[in-house]
Amino acid sequence: MDTERNFEKRFTESFAEIVENIIDLLNAKKYVAARDELLKNNEVDIAEILEEILEELGIEKTVIIFRTLPKDVSVEVFSYLPAEDQVALINVITDKEIKYIMDELDFDDMIDVLEELPANLVDKILEKTSKEERKLINTFLNYPDGSAGSLMTPYYISLNRDMTVEQALSYIKKEGMDSETIYTCYVKEKGRKLQGIISLRTLVISESDALIRDLMHEDFVSVNVHDDQEVVSDAFKRYGFLAIPVVDNEFRLVGIITVDDILDVIEEETTEDFERMAGVIDTGDAEYLDISVWKHVKNRLPWLFILMLSYVVTGGIIAGFEDVLSKVISLVAYMPMLMGTGGNSGSQSAVLVIRGMALGDVELRDAGKVLWKEIRVSLIIGLILSSLNFARIWWLDGQGPWVALVVCLSMLIIVMAAKSIGCLLPMAAKKFGIDPALMASPLIASLTDMVSVVTYFLMASLILGL
Amino acid sequence: MDTERNFEKRFTESFAEIVENIIDLLNAKKYVAARDELLKNNEVDIAEILEEILEELGIEKTVIIFRTLPKDVSVEVFSYLPAEDQVALINVITDKEIKYIMDELDFDDMIDVLEELPANLVDKILEKTSKEERKLINTFLNYPDGSAGSLMTPYYISLNRDMTVEQALSYIKKEGMDSETIYTCYVKEKGRKLQGIISLRTLVISESDALIRDLMHEDFVSVNVHDDQEVVSDAFKRYGFLAIPVVDNEFRLVGIITVDDILDVIEEETTEDFERMAGVIDTGDAEYLDISVWKHVKNRLPWLFILMLSYVVTGGIIAGFEDVLSKVISLVAYMPMLMGTGGNSGSQSAVLVIRGMALGDVELRDAGKVLWKEIRVSLIIGLILSSLNFARIWWLDGQGPWVALVVCLSMLIIVMAAKSIGCLLPMAAKKFGIDPALMASPLIASLTDMVSVVTYFLMASLILGL
Repeated sequence: MDTERNFEKRFTESFAEIVENIIDLLNAKKYVAARDELLKNNEVDIAEILEEILEELGIEKTVIIFRTLPKDVSVEVFSYLPAEDQVALINVITDKEIKYIMDELDFDDMIDVLEELPANLVDKILEKTSKEERKLINTFLNYPDGSAGSLMTPYYISLNRDMTVEQALSYIKKEGMDSETIYTCYVKEKGRKLQGIISLRTLVISESDALIRDLMHEDFVSVNVHDDQEVVSDAFKRYGFLAIPVVDNEFRLVGIITVDDILDVIEEETTEDFERMAGVIDTGDAEYLDISVWKHVKNRLPWLFILMLSYVVTGGIIAGFEDVLSKVISLVAYMPMLMGTGGNSGSQSAVLVIRGMALGDVELRDAGKVLWKEIRVSLIIGLILSSLNFARIWWLDGQGPWVALVVCLSMLIIVMAAKSIGCLLPMAAKKFGIDPALMASPLIASLTDMVSVVTYFLMASLILGL
Repeated sequence: MDTERNFEKRFTESFAEIVENIIDLLNAKKYVAARDELLKNNEVDIAEILEEILEELGIEKTVIIFRTLPKDVSVEVFSYLPAEDQVALINVITDKEIKYIMDELDFDDMIDVLEELPANLVDKILEKTSKEERKLINTFLNYPDGSAGSLMTPYYISLNRDMTVEQALSYIKKEGMDSETIYTCYVKEKGRKLQGIISLRTLVISESDALIRDLMHEDFVSVNVHDDQEVVSDAFKRYGFLAIPVVDNEFRLVGIITVDDILDVIEEETTEDFERMAGVIDTGDAEYLDISVWKHVKNRLPWLFILMLSYVVTGGIIAGFEDVLSKVISLVAYMPMLMGTGGNSGSQSAVLVIRGMALGDVELRDAGKVLWKEIRVSLIIGLILSSLNFARIWWLDGQGPWVALVVCLSMLIIVMAAKSIGCLLPMAAKKFGIDPALMASPLIASLTDMVSVVTYFLMASLILGL
């Protein structure tokens, strides 16, 4: 059926059916038919189907079907499995099978697997590799998680500046199998210092006797092996590269990072930003359901606690105004609206400024322009919301014009203050090297809460003469 | 200097200096020196430097330096300029220069430029193209913004299934110049139906007399020309492709989308999600500072207004409990804490579930598991926060044990309710085909506000016997 070639149809309509069908075949012990069904899918999808099979039928049945896959497919599928499923498989397959998988995996995928395995298993695997390979693996295992070094692979195509295009192409034909990518090739000096890069496209469309040194680009962009992965993903987003060279402090080429690995990094960084904006401590790449209850508590309690302290202050302010309140108790009913609208107004501005900075649209030196824009926007929004409320409070709630005036003047001031805080705080954070996302919704909302309460009760005291 | 090759150093330390230096050279009318400085940079960076020059020195000086660039560089730089700067340039350069740029731009970039230009200018440009090209351009201009069709290019390498590798490579050498990418090549049937894909990598490492039909992959993944760009970016994230074929409803190949264009789409979609989560209507790809005050008001007022309505309900609930409140006015001081903590707890759960669904870690059928996890997490968090507060309210605030009990029991119930609402609402939204991001922070906070107020006053009435 042609529909299964289409990405959206496949994942909204037929994926569950595909899985169910294969599980039925396995239950009926029709292994060959199950394998044939499985092989109709892309390796990424096969990995996801195996995940489901593992969950439904357990590791024994999963190993059976895994072993029926052609060897090259099985290695690729293995690389797409979640870490805990990889460990589960490694624990039940033979040493020979483990060695085959480790030999055939792309280097960066192998490092990822080794990082997840228990130390004794890692030792067992490393025993079987050559001394040279073992040294390389150990170097890579030492790059901190989230650094450029932890993302790169040491297998790339290295050309000589004096090669002709023809020589280069036949070298690539020979060595291309083991390289992470052949679409970007690298030219190094004697001291391993990177001199230039050349794309396979250039090689393929150039005359066969042209020289690499005349064709290569020398104005390439590189990242440092210790750069954070966010720096790497920013470079990819900025330049649209397929691969980026990673160099050490002496500008020696130590590896390359390819764009497919960066798509995962971008997802991880986005998740981190979302979590920070909701006051959740980064969960890394662990899946929601796999995180234990205690870990969830540990990730969420700190911010809830810090924010609660700010409510203690807000509560203290309210307690200080108890006299005012007890005289006009109906003022309490408008508190949630004022505080809530303040918080929401502040979050809106914060998110727009945070994204603007992330995309490079808003720079720190634009602070004045941003504030001026927010003041005008908040004045208009404040006036509109106040007028609507004035009418409602006076007529519908029957509170009389003075209470309505207190609420509405407060509303105007609160919206303007909230939007100013919301736009300035993330910029201030960036100025001081703090992630602006940490300044988002919850923190701004609790700050504006204080402002709201003070404003409201001061207005009440002044206008109602309490 | 070698440091300027490094991405991070360049953008944190030296970019402003580079720009300043070039502007100084331009002011001193040293155009050749300015051009040489400019050409030390990547085309993406040159575009950004030109943007700064345009802002500082105006369009006349910018055109002068733009014209000194080598022609191929100038076209690429042009493609990276923001839309309004492209229009500004087109308005001052000659018709001949416009024609040159339009001819040399990648097809998808040209469509983007045409979409931004005023209609009379578009007509003027289209007049100069061949009839066939004009028809193609018009078709592409008609794909709605944000669809796969609007992202694709019709220029790709089309191979014949009966070609040998050698024939294919020499065909690519001839046609590769005009193709968006040559790294993935496409094999079509007579009726333009896509049959298979083959990577340049496979071609380069295979024997020259091997046949395309034996090497090509037939289990490729495609997207439909009318699919939303989010579907396309999901496919890239899932499979790590360099390019994806775009087909029409009859599975005929109409174009391809390359990964570099998808990185921009991912940024756009992320921004949309962030904005939705803060109750801001999507700003598209317009920059914060370029959006007018009125447009900002229009993007933010609707959600503030809708949420305000929910506070009217909350206010109404409070008004109904005025008797209770007036008897123990000190209860008011704890309202912000209860409502705020409820809102924050709910947002935390919502964001985790929303991201979990976006990453495919959480499926709709996991709703039961998610709820069970949230109940346990919230029970623990609720108990911890309540105990801390109980001590504080009783001893520090001197409110006595009964008020402390009211606040703390309410806290526990509110945290548990908020986390349940926070995890279930985004899943319900997805079930009904609404973007889960719309269910995030502000909406959940205002819902939990209602729950908080009702819980709090019911507890007060019951325990304090009011």
